[in-house]
Amino acid sequence: MPRIVDHHQRRREVSAATLRVVVRDGLNGVTIRAVARESGWSTGVLNHYFENKRALLLAALREAATQADHNLQKTLRSNRSSLETIRATLEEMLPLDQRRRAMCEVFAYFYGEAASDAHMAEEMHTYYTNWRRVVRDAVLEGQADGTIRKELDATLVSEMLVAMADGLGLQGIFDPAIQSPRRQRQHVVEWLSYLTA
Amino acid sequence: MPRIVDHHQRRREVSAATLRVVVRDGLNGVTIRAVARESGWSTGVLNHYFENKRALLLAALREAATQADHNLQKTLRSNRSSLETIRATLEEMLPLDQRRRAMCEVFAYFYGEAASDAHMAEEMHTYYTNWRRVVRDAVLEGQADGTIRKELDATLVSEMLVAMADGLGLQGIFDPAIQSPRRQRQHVVEWLSYLTA
Repeated sequence: MPRIVDHHQRRREVSAATLRVVVRDGLNGVTIRAVARESGWSTGVLNHYFENKRALLLAALREAATQADHNLQKTLRSNRSSLETIRATLEEMLPLDQRRRAMCEVFAYFYGEAASDAHMAEEMHTYYTNWRRVVRDAVLEGQADGTIRKELDATLVSEMLVAMADGLGLQGIFDPAIQSPRRQRQHVVEWLSYLTA
Repeated sequence: MPRIVDHHQRRREVSAATLRVVVRDGLNGVTIRAVARESGWSTGVLNHYFENKRALLLAALREAATQADHNLQKTLRSNRSSLETIRATLEEMLPLDQRRRAMCEVFAYFYGEAASDAHMAEEMHTYYTNWRRVVRDAVLEGQADGTIRKELDATLVSEMLVAMADGLGLQGIFDPAIQSPRRQRQHVVEWLSYLTA
């Protein structure tokens, strides 16, 4: 009987393993050999699926986006207040711990490509559209129940919050002395008070 | 008589030529050959100074930062109001035209490296420290002359403004349908009203 290989499953295992390597050792730690060790697959199998470091990191980017979206959906299902949803969404995007720092690093790795390749730009557009929509829905909900100022333009403010989180997350990874996790949380508190003040 | 070569001058000419290629053709347009054509130097001379595309783009990054700083200093010397200084500083960071778009693209190219290389992180830290300081000084000035709300924390708010500009600039290059120049200017107006409201 021929051995049945679930290619999709295998790719996801390797993607998750790559992301764990970034969590532990940063972008520089990602090599075919390191991911082989982490995933339990041979370097031969890995080379079959991923031609180079970029291909591994692209898989890690998609895995990170999937995990972040999974966490956002969990937040939405938990019936928190709109402000709590916004806080959780922004904090999911910030490098507040090793897991989220890894996600920000993998995104940073592809920003240059997004600036010069239409496919990568389109992929980023999809992720950002999702984030902006989650924040915007929460802002509208907060305006409906009276916790968020009605005079704010929900679309503009959600773009602003996602832009702030993006810039802060980026600076948090290359400028952690200024944008420490503690400082980033202070910013989030400030933004929430802007919405309600 | 031996020909005298001003290496520093030659490097700056090539850096500026590289940046002009990005302005005209984007990151993908940057090749040794294209920069040779633009700068008037031979590919042989260029290969002597720059070993690859990354080296050319690193020179362009520094040239872009120098030009941006030059523009900021000009803004500061022109004795505008503090709000006008903040507006000009933020707008200098945003991809509102081809020149600034090129700067944002070159920065985006190096964000991944800044996430994984201490030297590049340090270089970015220097640029961002400068931007935050210019904005912070203007916020303090505006608070002193009564145009900006005194209860705002000048350091926190300047970090926030630079983070917003950063995120917006990034999204402006890979998501221009959402973050058009017109939309980005709307955001700047909104932030200025936040400072004064």
